[in-house]
Amino acid sequence: MSEANNKKVLGFGEVMLRLIPPNNKKIIQSNSFEAIYGGGEANVIASLSCFGHKTKFATKLPDNSLGDKVIRDLKGFDIDTSSVVRGEGRLGIYFSEIGHGYRSTEVIYDRKYSAISMANKEEFDIKCMLKDVSLVHMSGITPALSKELYNLVIDIAKYCKENSILVSLDSNYRAKLWSLEEAKGFLEKVLPYVDIAFLGKLDMTNILKYEDNDLDFEDSLKELYKELFKNYPNIKYAACTKRSVHSINNNSLKGYIFDGNDMQISSEYTFDILDRVGGGDAFTAGILHGVINNMDSKKTVEFGVCASALKHSIRGDINLVDEESVISLIDKGLQNIKR
Amino acid sequence: MSEANNKKVLGFGEVMLRLIPPNNKKIIQSNSFEAIYGGGEANVIASLSCFGHKTKFATKLPDNSLGDKVIRDLKGFDIDTSSVVRGEGRLGIYFSEIGHGYRSTEVIYDRKYSAISMANKEEFDIKCMLKDVSLVHMSGITPALSKELYNLVIDIAKYCKENSILVSLDSNYRAKLWSLEEAKGFLEKVLPYVDIAFLGKLDMTNILKYEDNDLDFEDSLKELYKELFKNYPNIKYAACTKRSVHSINNNSLKGYIFDGNDMQISSEYTFDILDRVGGGDAFTAGILHGVINNMDSKKTVEFGVCASALKHSIRGDINLVDEESVISLIDKGLQNIKR
Amino acid sequence: MSEANNKKVLGFGEVMLRLIPPNNKKIIQSNSFEAIYGGGEANVIASLSCFGHKTKFATKLPDNSLGDKVIRDLKGFDIDTSSVVRGEGRLGIYFSEIGHGYRSTEVIYDRKYSAISMANKEEFDIKCMLKDVSLVHMSGITPALSKELYNLVIDIAKYCKENSILVSLDSNYRAKLWSLEEAKGFLEKVLPYVDIAFLGKLDMTNILKYEDNDLDFEDSLKELYKELFKNYPNIKYAACTKRSVHSINNNSLKGYIFDGNDMQISSEYTFDILDRVGGGDAFTAGILHGVINNMDSKKTVEFGVCASALKHSIRGDINLVDEESVISLIDKGLQNIKR
Amino acid sequence: MSEANNKKVLGFGEVMLRLIPPNNKKIIQSNSFEAIYGGGEANVIASLSCFGHKTKFATKLPDNSLGDKVIRDLKGFDIDTSSVVRGEGRLGIYFSEIGHGYRSTEVIYDRKYSAISMANKEEFDIKCMLKDVSLVHMSGITPALSKELYNLVIDIAKYCKENSILVSLDSNYRAKLWSLEEAKGFLEKVLPYVDIAFLGKLDMTNILKYEDNDLDFEDSLKELYKELFKNYPNIKYAACTKRSVHSINNNSLKGYIFDGNDMQISSEYTFDILDRVGGGDAFTAGILHGVINNMDSKKTVEFGVCASALKHSIRGDINLVDEESVISLIDKGLQNIKR
Amino acid sequence: MSEANNKKVLGFGEVMLRLIPPNNKKIIQSNSFEAIYGGGEANVIASLSCFGHKTKFATKLPDNSLGDKVIRDLKGFDIDTSSVVRGEGRLGIYFSEIGHGYRSTEVIYDRKYSAISMANKEEFDIKCMLKDVSLVHMSGITPALSKELYNLVIDIAKYCKENSILVSLDSNYRAKLWSLEEAKGFLEKVLPYVDIAFLGKLDMTNILKYEDNDLDFEDSLKELYKELFKNYPNIKYAACTKRSVHSINNNSLKGYIFDGNDMQISSEYTFDILDRVGGGDAFTAGILHGVINNMDSKKTVEFGVCASALKHSIRGDINLVDEESVISLIDKGLQNIKR
Amino acid sequence: MSEANNKKVLGFGEVMLRLIPPNNKKIIQSNSFEAIYGGGEANVIASLSCFGHKTKFATKLPDNSLGDKVIRDLKGFDIDTSSVVRGEGRLGIYFSEIGHGYRSTEVIYDRKYSAISMANKEEFDIKCMLKDVSLVHMSGITPALSKELYNLVIDIAKYCKENSILVSLDSNYRAKLWSLEEAKGFLEKVLPYVDIAFLGKLDMTNILKYEDNDLDFEDSLKELYKELFKNYPNIKYAACTKRSVHSINNNSLKGYIFDGNDMQISSEYTFDILDRVGGGDAFTAGILHGVINNMDSKKTVEFGVCASALKHSIRGDINLVDEESVISLIDKGLQNIKR
Repeated sequence: MSEANNKKVLGFGEVMLRLIPPNNKKIIQSNSFEAIYGGGEANVIASLSCFGHKTKFATKLPDNSLGDKVIRDLKGFDIDTSSVVRGEGRLGIYFSEIGHGYRSTEVIYDRKYSAISMANKEEFDIKCMLKDVSLVHMSGITPALSKELYNLVIDIAKYCKENSILVSLDSNYRAKLWSLEEAKGFLEKVLPYVDIAFLGKLDMTNILKYEDNDLDFEDSLKELYKELFKNYPNIKYAACTKRSVHSINNNSLKGYIFDGNDMQISSEYTFDILDRVGGGDAFTAGILHGVINNMDSKKTVEFGVCASALKHSIRGDINLVDEESVISLIDKGLQNIKR
Repeated sequence: MSEANNKKVLGFGEVMLRLIPPNNKKIIQSNSFEAIYGGGEANVIASLSCFGHKTKFATKLPDNSLGDKVIRDLKGFDIDTSSVVRGEGRLGIYFSEIGHGYRSTEVIYDRKYSAISMANKEEFDIKCMLKDVSLVHMSGITPALSKELYNLVIDIAKYCKENSILVSLDSNYRAKLWSLEEAKGFLEKVLPYVDIAFLGKLDMTNILKYEDNDLDFEDSLKELYKELFKNYPNIKYAACTKRSVHSINNNSLKGYIFDGNDMQISSEYTFDILDRVGGGDAFTAGILHGVINNMDSKKTVEFGVCASALKHSIRGDINLVDEESVISLIDKGLQNIKR
Repeated sequence: MSEANNKKVLGFGEVMLRLIPPNNKKIIQSNSFEAIYGGGEANVIASLSCFGHKTKFATKLPDNSLGDKVIRDLKGFDIDTSSVVRGEGRLGIYFSEIGHGYRSTEVIYDRKYSAISMANKEEFDIKCMLKDVSLVHMSGITPALSKELYNLVIDIAKYCKENSILVSLDSNYRAKLWSLEEAKGFLEKVLPYVDIAFLGKLDMTNILKYEDNDLDFEDSLKELYKELFKNYPNIKYAACTKRSVHSINNNSLKGYIFDGNDMQISSEYTFDILDRVGGGDAFTAGILHGVINNMDSKKTVEFGVCASALKHSIRGDINLVDEESVISLIDKGLQNIKR
Repeated sequence: MSEANNKKVLGFGEVMLRLIPPNNKKIIQSNSFEAIYGGGEANVIASLSCFGHKTKFATKLPDNSLGDKVIRDLKGFDIDTSSVVRGEGRLGIYFSEIGHGYRSTEVIYDRKYSAISMANKEEFDIKCMLKDVSLVHMSGITPALSKELYNLVIDIAKYCKENSILVSLDSNYRAKLWSLEEAKGFLEKVLPYVDIAFLGKLDMTNILKYEDNDLDFEDSLKELYKELFKNYPNIKYAACTKRSVHSINNNSLKGYIFDGNDMQISSEYTFDILDRVGGGDAFTAGILHGVINNMDSKKTVEFGVCASALKHSIRGDINLVDEESVISLIDKGLQNIKR
Repeated sequence: MSEANNKKVLGFGEVMLRLIPPNNKKIIQSNSFEAIYGGGEANVIASLSCFGHKTKFATKLPDNSLGDKVIRDLKGFDIDTSSVVRGEGRLGIYFSEIGHGYRSTEVIYDRKYSAISMANKEEFDIKCMLKDVSLVHMSGITPALSKELYNLVIDIAKYCKENSILVSLDSNYRAKLWSLEEAKGFLEKVLPYVDIAFLGKLDMTNILKYEDNDLDFEDSLKELYKELFKNYPNIKYAACTKRSVHSINNNSLKGYIFDGNDMQISSEYTFDILDRVGGGDAFTAGILHGVINNMDSKKTVEFGVCASALKHSIRGDINLVDEESVISLIDKGLQNIKR
Repeated sequence: MSEANNKKVLGFGEVMLRLIPPNNKKIIQSNSFEAIYGGGEANVIASLSCFGHKTKFATKLPDNSLGDKVIRDLKGFDIDTSSVVRGEGRLGIYFSEIGHGYRSTEVIYDRKYSAISMANKEEFDIKCMLKDVSLVHMSGITPALSKELYNLVIDIAKYCKENSILVSLDSNYRAKLWSLEEAKGFLEKVLPYVDIAFLGKLDMTNILKYEDNDLDFEDSLKELYKELFKNYPNIKYAACTKRSVHSINNNSLKGYIFDGNDMQISSEYTFDILDRVGGGDAFTAGILHGVINNMDSKKTVEFGVCASALKHSIRGDINLVDEESVISLIDKGLQNIKR
């Protein structure tokens, strides 16, 4: 499953502006916001860029300075932005009050009516978008934004299947955007075209309504993956993580990948958190890096989890670490100073 | 036209979040925003609070932390917020890149779909809102936001007329929100109920389509005001300013007030600008302060322009200066240090 | 012991300016200070405001911008400030170098000669202050500031007793302000009027000189409370916490409440600390919330400790969390993100 | 009047903490303060240090971190602090809201009860303080702080006269600290010991009650100085500036020095202001630099005014520029960049 | 002289890290630096990018995070960085204390031993660098850095001439780097290959030793340009500006362009300065934009000066404004707000 | 081994500028740097100053504002800088990206070609430098910078031996600067003059090539120290720490001191880290403090480790804590607040 010569990995999805009161303050006591531009699919693509892959990103952005800023940030990662559509409308925003100790992080969404969520399917030229692309990564958030995007995601997946382009899909269920039933409908439509599926246990039991067996977590997950692969024999890999929350700023993470036969399990890593956003996307990018480079599953899942562990030490949505740093963590563990 | 014993001045209108890249940066080069919450009508009311009046504000705010923050800021000014409606929706936002020298300030609006702009007229209880109120201040922005608000503003104005509550209206035409014709329709509907009209020369020639005579600015303005008072004999005062822009950060200001017979003209003040937003609202508040306190027109317009000149030296939308500071500027002019 | 219809909870005490070198710096290496305005009694009242109670605060503040700022902050919490006395003098200040790891937090007091500490008893109109008030909260700091305030606190407590207003008192012994003997004299004078007493084990053994038995902490505390209630049968509740200090930034907390018969004990919570100041006041407010709302003692003490645990995750003196957040922590424990 | 070999210039006076809301904000809207430690006499001494003189400073400071910080800042300027007295008490504070445009800078003093103002004369060892000192600079603020300091300043001046140490005195009248009559009494007592007097026109007409003649400013000033020198033939130089305030942030400055016969007048400089505090002290230091180095009066007054003009471009109280920068401004005028 | 279809404009030169004490502080009083990465040639290329041109940049950067950061910033402007050489060494640094009023900006260079200045000519592949390039911009700084770079610049210029690639050269004489004689030698070697020469009056009189005539500035400049074009008939355009320094933060600018026959002169613009660095590069980019787009000389020089005037209102080295903003200033003059 | 009356402790070595992206950011995402000036030997001397010793520092600094800033910082600590050489050249710089969780701290050195590393031995006047000095502290970094400094360090050590000045040496091996063999050569040359040697286990096994025995860490260390003292009977004390890295921000530390007979071992301390730089230097200063004050070895090593533990809670290179704070930690352990 090697990356075709010089072909690109494309991400498609929404990019939003995240506004954060500084120093763990609450909105009510703050007179400024830190501003970060990101989104699940873009985070994955930018991380793959840092790992050395050729990348491309497609989305719709408003025709103003906020859109320009997103373009500039993407280009800084050497991401091809030639398929980004510009036009009327607003950039989706969300505010996040970063929690501490026992205080939860609270998110206020202001993403409705964004330019991409109000776009017509026809504004995107699938053929052009996928030229020179060997793998497409999308998530279950985009189809939840509008009927047009729902259909577009399906169309892209189909086009990929017909043109031997790999499809990676992250379920990423958001209850604020649609119901479990709607998500189920979508997954059942798209999974026949998917090669790499980022689905966790709850995705399979709560959305796909697979029967929850009585086994412990890992055995149960493996059984569920088996059923998934039986239903969708096209899937080549399924992967997910399990997170244990010790405090808002200290979590543990373990990764799982299933290849149809075996499930490989990573070591568990416990770490302090500088910025939690994008932790899952870093895992996804790590897994895709392993899959593209034909690493074995054991190494792939370890790479994914270590990539995610490192992301939690980086401010902002995007995992700025390179391949070497991840491998160094896998091989040598924690190092104090690199002079 | 004295303030009834202990009665309040009410403002009704939208409050928005203003996001500003710090240190005159452009959005494309900034990773944070200063956050200020304000709006024309709220700015007027808060300034009146600082001048010592009893005040109240009505609007609709989203039922989240951003709405809470607006409430808290208003309460900090001792403004009665009991008539603020809370509910679903978003807080309107605008981004402003503060210009410098020859570089214009640029505003990106993201105000569509705000909670108030999507509210139903019925969500507001006019009778309750106007209990214990002696003067209401509104602007031409609110009716431009939705048909519902258009009708609500007219209803409020009518209710005031029937209940001997004074009505102050600031035209505040925004081409991005509606056409000159729509604005004309509104003004013609609302002016019969208005006591104090903040209309400039262009409002009368471009919106109301009064004939532009060939006179110099001041004579022309006076003629236009005469026509206005002929058409709407209910109007007691009309006022406006003329601004000369020497550079983004240095302007001059002169004020005018017409009482049906005479037009009083203030001195001209030239000043450096720390924050231009709310400069007009500070003038409006200054005029209302003079009118409520039965100051003579000459003193009223001087008070209005000095209030506005001082506002330009204050960060944020709201004129934090008290009555004494304005009078000190009128009487003694610029003072270096007050120990 | 339910809150009389629409009656207010009043706090009386000093408000000070806290100046903090940013980023855990020491004063010697810092060129700026973060500024926070607060005080034990004000913190309790503001927290009760956040929990939904009607509140009022009385103090004396200097007649300058620093006093204005305190008023504005209190009003932002919807606290009635009509009984705040303004006049000549200074605002008390303290500097705190926030510690880290093994380095203790160090406090430099500059509170002498503050406006309130030099005020005459007659400047405060007790009757007016307590109009529409159902509960008064005071602390043992105020009487230590001056003889005048000492007498005033006793007078307020007496007036409450005569007018069926509940009295809450937090011992809050400060060795820098007075001796153990002086504190003993005060407590013995005021306790006959107190309904809810925030006294810890050391308050009873070191100040009140109750005999320290040889029992373990919890049994010992219960015995001491029994003696307290025997001496002052008017007391309805006594409460305190026990704090274990693992490092400057990581503590554990457990709460205790005694109702004359039983002592209820909360779970123990361990948490990282963003700002320790106001942690005790948050507990006090939580207990008062439970008492006012007739919650049972078990739930009250759990509410108090969870409120305090959450406070440690909030910058500033005041516990900005609402009732729902506290209940969510009690019922569901730590949650990662609330979207 | 050359500086004795290796002898030091001593300053004696109060050092205070200046707290400034950042970005021209008002206290009511700010949650932090910039912190600057300074005082008129210390500013003069530090500037003389930057000009290359050996210096020493005497004062009383509280025995806490704030006092340590002052010591450290003075030592950073290579100022001998061996005669600084430490002890109980507080550091005087003042808050300054920096104005803008038409908004005046407002100062709130919180300097009462400072350690130095409550010190006994006996705490200072004059003989030790003045060992190896060739010139002492003091101001009219210190004697206004307490009777003890009043007497101490007179004692120091007397001791200097008896030991051939030059005395420099800056009148620096502050109406908040004492009356014109009290200041007159002090000046009449101290002037017989003064060698270099920093007195402006108002000091002579309002405090010393010299008759104001009808001449224009410069002629009038010269006549007043003549009378001063007639009364106090011991005075060798008298100097002052005239400031024209165009806006809070743009002033002009002109300097005057009188040597008993002639009055030399500097060029007038107009400049934008970064920080106005210490502008007068920079002039004083510049004049003292000229006097100590036996520069002619014309050059001395030009040096003084240029030093002051440059100070207005420096943040903080102290004129950080060296002799070369002042001379470069005198000789070459404004230069854009020094690479 | 139109840009060949889709061909790029290449810049070649050094990129440095500029470290600036914030808020006009001096290094001695600051504990942080703002960091900006730029350089004359890169600034020109980035500005051309903002004007819509396809661009490329060549340099040598150290193989560390500082080099990565420069690459990322260039890519953010959509500049092709494929010819950037990476390797051992350091990034050149300079510190600049931004002046104010009468205080000059002071620059401390720490640029010696930078990676590019120690590079061998052979590390750069001229052919590859100039593939698909239609215009190359270089400056007189690069040849002053080392003999290797001296020869490389000449080689690049020669290669361009042989391959019909336009050459733009900015003299940019720096006395700290080489002597007038060395600069003369270089200019005489390179000018035969130059198409667009950015040379001012002093470059021609002081470096090239053309005789300074006695005419006024503009006539004199025209005569000097005539002599230049006589000596180097290959030159198509020569251009420069004249700057008048009213204060560090307020300058005037006028532009001149000569095309062999006529000299066109722009209007004069006076403006406040936010950041002066890159003002000249913005003019250069504006002129190149006009030349590439075949604008007439009058319009070209006005565009260049307006671009430069706008740059002075932008923080950082690079002129972030687009073509439309420049044209708007030319056509409509100063506008207050663009909503 | 008591400090001679009033004699000074001298440090000799390089001082560098440390540039740190704020808030744990990476260089690639940051637009500013915090600036800290320090160096191993200077850190030791400054800490000794805070402990109350008379101190002096010798180095070479560039003759510009950066050098001035270093001087000013040293003087602020009351360090005698009269032997600091100023001249041409640059200040060494290093950039450090502070890690977090699993992300290592990364250091980019830009120290080559610094003024001191290019200095001639003759620029330093050893006799003058060591006047009134009782102890000299140097490290193994200085001789690695240049042959000249190598010889100078040996010369200083020799001069000390001849003049009964104690010599303290910290091995501080840096692989980037020289090879193990070169370091061995140096140590063998200098150790015969050393009184107090800061050498860890790896210094003895890897550099000095002492045979690594098979014992556990502590026994092994003691055996190695015995061999060291056999080879260099002049050595009076040898000391080192063992650090356990739990995460980038949480370490444990234990200290060891050997006096020729016994090895004393401190308690182990575990702590969160605010700034790790200077942790070793704080230990060194603590040990020297104990040695100078003739504390017994057990107390000395406890003092050294507690000093180091406290340093990790201080921002910047230098341990700002005084003797009392260290003793308080030894005696009373962690205290929450010191009021």
